[in-house]
Amino acid sequence: MPDFDKHRVKKNDRVNLSKTETDGKKIESDRAACEELCESLRTELISLQARLYSEGKQKLLVVFQAMDAGGKDGTTRSVFQGANPQGVVVTSFKRPSDEELAHDFLWRVHKAVPGNGMIGVFNRSHYEDVLVVRVHDMVPESVWRPRYEFINDFEKMLTASGTRILKFFLHISKNEQKRRFQERIDNPEKRWKFDPADLEKRKFWNAYEKAFEDMLEKCSTTECPWYIVPGDQNWYRDLVVTGVIVETLKQMNPQYPAPPDVKGVVIE
Amino acid sequence: MPDFDKHRVKKNDRVNLSKTETDGKKIESDRAACEELCESLRTELISLQARLYSEGKQKLLVVFQAMDAGGKDGTTRSVFQGANPQGVVVTSFKRPSDEELAHDFLWRVHKAVPGNGMIGVFNRSHYEDVLVVRVHDMVPESVWRPRYEFINDFEKMLTASGTRILKFFLHISKNEQKRRFQERIDNPEKRWKFDPADLEKRKFWNAYEKAFEDMLEKCSTTECPWYIVPGDQNWYRDLVVTGVIVETLKQMNPQYPAPPDVKGVVIE
Repeated sequence: MPDFDKHRVKKNDRVNLSKTETDGKKIESDRAACEELCESLRTELISLQARLYSEGKQKLLVVFQAMDAGGKDGTTRSVFQGANPQGVVVTSFKRPSDEELAHDFLWRVHKAVPGNGMIGVFNRSHYEDVLVVRVHDMVPESVWRPRYEFINDFEKMLTASGTRILKFFLHISKNEQKRRFQERIDNPEKRWKFDPADLEKRKFWNAYEKAFEDMLEKCSTTECPWYIVPGDQNWYRDLVVTGVIVETLKQMNPQYPAPPDVKGVVIE
Repeated sequence: MPDFDKHRVKKNDRVNLSKTETDGKKIESDRAACEELCESLRTELISLQARLYSEGKQKLLVVFQAMDAGGKDGTTRSVFQGANPQGVVVTSFKRPSDEELAHDFLWRVHKAVPGNGMIGVFNRSHYEDVLVVRVHDMVPESVWRPRYEFINDFEKMLTASGTRILKFFLHISKNEQKRRFQERIDNPEKRWKFDPADLEKRKFWNAYEKAFEDMLEKCSTTECPWYIVPGDQNWYRDLVVTGVIVETLKQMNPQYPAPPDVKGVVIE
């Protein structure tokens, strides 16, 4: 079993994304073994999720953040397909509505956190408010700077209420982003995902990198860790994410509820 | 103008409710003057609320907590009737639903906080989770004890997002509660409010008093203060609450938005 924990951002770690691997230092010859392992982890995940749901006492929140084309959609699909959709709720956070903007930045996020028995998946999240919002000066620094602390407070409170939180930064290289954008342009079935605005955001690559680094350094705690997942190869990325989730669900150790006493029950 | 600020719980204040006035040290002969003043404050409140709403940039959250029959409903009606209902949203927090209980204690509360331009009124609130929940051992101390900190974190984050928070503990004596319960029994129009369970809770008067004291000491901050409002006389209680809200709205100083340029506009 690979050492998934090496991708976790530990307390006081300094993060330098341009020097952090995006390819998992893997070669194509590892691929078959990784995919096989990932498949068996997926089976475990499905079984653990069923137990989490029936137990109804704990909840898991999985957060995905990445550069554009970083693989948030693909990872969500790959990791959770097969799980019972009744127990997995994916929320994609897009540009906030007027009503959402009229409230604090955690308002729309808090509404979407999972309840007991559930796995909640955030495709983008409250972290956008220290990423895109910061990079493009949508609010002054005096507003976004305190948000790291508010986020940590918020996640601490959720943790105290029985929520396990896992956060994955899907880390791709600038070249890989170029390749994926080009593929979206060239492949008619992927073209709908291409947004010319993404090319504008690509110009801010370094500013985004800095914002991601700050987020990873300030908001990775022992209870609510960030993982930097090498993202250039989907098969390695999916393995790491699935592996960390399975390990966490095992620690949570959900149990089927005690069945009712059926002694003497007769169905007529 | 009476000194409303003397009812505010300051940092490091020790609170002893059984030694804190419930009657405003007022005599019936003050009543007419208080009512007259309250009436003019109410007019100010209506005008300030209209400006807050049209400005659409700030929000006010007013929290009421009290012993049973302490006057939460009556104060809400008295203070806010006359204000534009489109800009004032009252939320009464009752026994939590199964879905609410499946989430953290702030989940249902956060959903109900006011947006820009709005006044939100909480009839009961997140504080129930350190009051009734504590007194009746609904969760262990290891769960309710950290909530003071989570509440302060939460209110701090709301404050940073442009929300002013005012919290009023309506303070009645044990004798006054008895009188009000008796009135509910005797008066057919009030009888619907009588709940025999309230008599059970009355037996826990001292435990509630202790829980209120802790709440007032731990969660009254400069930004989000608690006020202990003498509650035995409705006319004095309403004056204090209205006065504090008007003073706060004046500090918030909401402004009508700049009107559009109408030079040359002709309506045909």
